[in-house]
Amino acid sequence: MFSEEHKTAGVAYPQGFKAAGVRAGIKKSGNLDVAVIYTEKEAAVAGVFTKNQVAAAPIRVSKIVVDTGTAHAIVANAGCANACTGEQGLRNAEKMAEIAAAELNCKSDDVVVASTGIIGVNLPMDKMEVGIKNAVKNLSREGSVNAGNAIVTTDTYSKSCATEVEIGGKLVRFGAIAKGSGMIQPDMATMLCFITTDADIDQKLLQTALSKITEVTFNMISIDGDMSTNDMVTVLANGAAGNAKITAKNADYEKFYSTLESICRELSKKIAADGEGATKFLTINVSGAENFDDAKKVGMSVAKSPLVKTAFFGEDPNWGRVICAVGYSGVKINPSSTVVKFGGIEVYAHGVGVQYDEGTLKKIMAAHDIAIDIELGLGNTSATVWSCDFSYEYVKINGEYHT
Amino acid sequence: MFSEEHKTAGVAYPQGFKAAGVRAGIKKSGNLDVAVIYTEKEAAVAGVFTKNQVAAAPIRVSKIVVDTGTAHAIVANAGCANACTGEQGLRNAEKMAEIAAAELNCKSDDVVVASTGIIGVNLPMDKMEVGIKNAVKNLSREGSVNAGNAIVTTDTYSKSCATEVEIGGKLVRFGAIAKGSGMIQPDMATMLCFITTDADIDQKLLQTALSKITEVTFNMISIDGDMSTNDMVTVLANGAAGNAKITAKNADYEKFYSTLESICRELSKKIAADGEGATKFLTINVSGAENFDDAKKVGMSVAKSPLVKTAFFGEDPNWGRVICAVGYSGVKINPSSTVVKFGGIEVYAHGVGVQYDEGTLKKIMAAHDIAIDIELGLGNTSATVWSCDFSYEYVKINGEYHT
Repeated sequence: MFSEEHKTAGVAYPQGFKAAGVRAGIKKSGNLDVAVIYTEKEAAVAGVFTKNQVAAAPIRVSKIVVDTGTAHAIVANAGCANACTGEQGLRNAEKMAEIAAAELNCKSDDVVVASTGIIGVNLPMDKMEVGIKNAVKNLSREGSVNAGNAIVTTDTYSKSCATEVEIGGKLVRFGAIAKGSGMIQPDMATMLCFITTDADIDQKLLQTALSKITEVTFNMISIDGDMSTNDMVTVLANGAAGNAKITAKNADYEKFYSTLESICRELSKKIAADGEGATKFLTINVSGAENFDDAKKVGMSVAKSPLVKTAFFGEDPNWGRVICAVGYSGVKINPSSTVVKFGGIEVYAHGVGVQYDEGTLKKIMAAHDIAIDIELGLGNTSATVWSCDFSYEYVKINGEYHT
Repeated sequence: MFSEEHKTAGVAYPQGFKAAGVRAGIKKSGNLDVAVIYTEKEAAVAGVFTKNQVAAAPIRVSKIVVDTGTAHAIVANAGCANACTGEQGLRNAEKMAEIAAAELNCKSDDVVVASTGIIGVNLPMDKMEVGIKNAVKNLSREGSVNAGNAIVTTDTYSKSCATEVEIGGKLVRFGAIAKGSGMIQPDMATMLCFITTDADIDQKLLQTALSKITEVTFNMISIDGDMSTNDMVTVLANGAAGNAKITAKNADYEKFYSTLESICRELSKKIAADGEGATKFLTINVSGAENFDDAKKVGMSVAKSPLVKTAFFGEDPNWGRVICAVGYSGVKINPSSTVVKFGGIEVYAHGVGVQYDEGTLKKIMAAHDIAIDIELGLGNTSATVWSCDFSYEYVKINGEYHT
């Protein structure tokens, strides 16, 4: 579904979108750090933002943009989160939008802004201004790779994908770039995801779809249980595909919805797999729950347990730590009806450990991708949480990332 | 208050108590692994147990003992948690009590049992039997140090303390041993704590005091956010001090309560300071909360954040991660009224970072004991959470602790 070629096209794969990423000197490393995504045709915009009460300035500015319902551009930077920066920070976030708007001949409340990086430091606005102007000059159909690289921080690679679907006889395209590897936890953690599409869709339906999809994709990732001040997922839909505008929850909407969901799921998995210092990608499938919240709680309890995470780093099939995390998840469970499987192999059932073939399990634990199945035997609802292990490298990255 | 001499006397410091710790071959290391604590005079017993639904067999057996209101002995082992061991595990936990009861000439429902170690493995009952018999033979007034060492797992040292207080003209003594370093989190996590006292006190009052004190001491520790299947805190009060029996919440009760609380606070701090791989002891004081639950939630959110824990390991005054964890704690806060201090030095106030003297803060961060003050400015309630940092060693200990 997601080809390499599409991936490179990224946010500029849908018709009418351009992108760029440039060096503005905000990252100490000197890497790309300012990105602009632009659509000449006005786009419907939807957004989901961090629930952290210490929300960064760009979050506050971008919420207002999403409230207007339309947007022409996204301006983002890495290297400085513009969080805990007070009135000056708010002014700087607004200024980011104003600079871009002036260059792009649009209104400043048509520009979504986003920042990621260190907390408590003011944006160097002189550098930002040069960077934004430079990025606008460099906007192109081939700019998505640079834009993707400009928003990463401790990520080991830039996440992107693109795909297409036929809606009402028209080819509708989707593209996306995302970043996020530390401080990732449900409810949006320093994760930025910018999605573009040339679909024509009512803004309210776009927001409904994005909000619902975020609950089962981005909010199902846990890397370290921390929730950032800066997270956001934004979709711009500019209608350039020429499909009959989607204005109701009909078959066209369903197609749109499932394609957007597949994009969000793909990026969620990539973000979890690239967790800081991660050596394992863990897919935790909880089934047999009475409801989704219970299933999610159980999955998150396991995903967030440092003891589980370090056991997987050590390739130790320590199911005791998994069932222990299930037991303290806060969800009423029955230890006797609960089954735990690693890579499809039963390791715990009927309240006790299950004899397994050590060779087979050793191979499962040695793999990069490991599935943990938790069957509660209480109901019919499932949920999947994506996570990673906890390594020396995680401690190194976060113990040495100095303010 | 807690002298070295008393510490050595430990659980045998109060009159009428004896203790022993022996090698039974349950720990792979060959270290001491079976402990017995005994009072000839029947003691009132109180207990607080793990809330993990996957409670280990000894927890289920000991709850019944506490329900009887009296006890003569505690038998504990390390090296095997006897958790997730089904009917066989339950039978083995009962058998531990039966073996001890036969040797001590008491009823088996007068014997509290406790286990800690690996989950999902059955107790080697032949070894247990020899061990318990041997421990009973070795019971002495000098046996607390061995008993303390017999219950540790990944602890770097055995925790113990003892003290005394005058109640109604009589000298009343208290002693305690405890273990716990990984999987420690509020609501009792693989933490064992056995407290003895020669006070004469009504069993119901003893239980009331212990339950209340546990909430503000042991349940305020967080090491890795995991809650064990095996935790328990038990108090035996044998009345040998000859004080007028405490049967109401009078001045005598207050003295008893505050002394028991000081014991529990002392051990809680020791357990947090000896967290697996810990290089820092963090005291998180949350003040200005509207109620205790809010203050605790904020403190725990900070204490459990891997990003905060790794920052302190790296001696980085990264207040951004602290205020971020405050912001997602689930408690309604006001970022502008919140103040964060490290070692008494303001680092965050009025929504932004505060300029501080780098040299002073560097010294604070380099110390072993660091106080984090979080003033919410919303009410008058405080809470203190004890925690530690996250180091390479934590990952090593838990990645290499193989099943």
